[in-house]
Amino acid sequence: MTPGADGPAPRRRGRPSRAAHAEGPDARTRILEAARAEFAVRGYDKTSMRGIAKAAGVDAALVHHYFGTKDEVFAAAVEVSFEPALVIPSILGGPSADVGERLARFFIGVWENPASRAPLLAMLRSALTHEAAAKVLREFVLRRLLERIAADLDVPDPAFRAELAASHMIGIAILRYVIQAEPLASADPERIIAMVAPTLQRYLADG
Amino acid sequence: MTPGADGPAPRRRGRPSRAAHAEGPDARTRILEAARAEFAVRGYDKTSMRGIAKAAGVDAALVHHYFGTKDEVFAAAVEVSFEPALVIPSILGGPSADVGERLARFFIGVWENPASRAPLLAMLRSALTHEAAAKVLREFVLRRLLERIAADLDVPDPAFRAELAASHMIGIAILRYVIQAEPLASADPERIIAMVAPTLQRYLADG
Repeated sequence: MTPGADGPAPRRRGRPSRAAHAEGPDARTRILEAARAEFAVRGYDKTSMRGIAKAAGVDAALVHHYFGTKDEVFAAAVEVSFEPALVIPSILGGPSADVGERLARFFIGVWENPASRAPLLAMLRSALTHEAAAKVLREFVLRRLLERIAADLDVPDPAFRAELAASHMIGIAILRYVIQAEPLASADPERIIAMVAPTLQRYLADG
Repeated sequence: MTPGADGPAPRRRGRPSRAAHAEGPDARTRILEAARAEFAVRGYDKTSMRGIAKAAGVDAALVHHYFGTKDEVFAAAVEVSFEPALVIPSILGGPSADVGERLARFFIGVWENPASRAPLLAMLRSALTHEAAAKVLREFVLRRLLERIAADLDVPDPAFRAELAASHMIGIAILRYVIQAEPLASADPERIIAMVAPTLQRYLADG
């Protein structure tokens, strides 16, 4: 399967394509799923475009066609866990009085789901140990995600505050799922949400 | 140099010895400094007791004598950055109305100092990629540190809250110093402290 004149349009930015999702497990979706699994198992450094193509059952040229570079596959594989096109409006679209709780609930939900947790943890590990992966997280994922969140916030320094909120959720993920520090590792997700929501609320909404 | 009957007392728990510090760069201090540098450069996995001994200019047997195992050297090397014997009282000893600010200021100060930042980042990376290092952080460093902090807190679930506070500071360190996400990476430390102190205050003091 190679892209032809009437094949799906190349998406060099690697953002999740709603159209592709709607069509079911097409080649692009299969490539992203394979990339998530490869990055999760092998880490950033040892994952190759060729390996992703093989796992997805497609030609390596198709992976390049859709994503251009390994960095862009990595960015898309991280982003797909967050599905920003769907998620951002659902977090920021509701009443601002409980945006903190919606964000906390969303993040904990993503991390509590083993299917999304494993690739996210692998990508976080990669970002912490390989500058190339850190750069992708910094320049693609975080910038896009945080710019979109910050644009909707009515507070001073919205990007700074969005990063502080993100830092808390990343730190919780590390202590709870990677280092597995108790009692946090075994705490009911609702207890975490109850404590953290007012923090995120203050950062994102209460100047 | 090997420990004799009148040599320094073995300290199997590896906590920083105030007496040792007062005596200047004795063997135990040299070993810890060498261990910090070795873990920072090589990571947890590739650091050996023999390599630490060589870097410290002592016999490997002396490293075993003071610390027992590589895990205990690792725990002591992390702990020495925090000097809990000095730091905990200075954070928890003051008025509880600004314990959050004192804790935020202390953590940012440790991370802003390149001498303590490099080994801490290396150890955090190790903990995220090697279960053995995660176990040390979980069972030695965090448990000891958090138990001591929690013991002085007058809030429900003190250990849980101390971990939430720690998670935020760890997450900030990762975004600011490792992933270097902007604007957080370039933000004035005082701006971070001003935003984060009320969060830590609520977790640690305001039930």
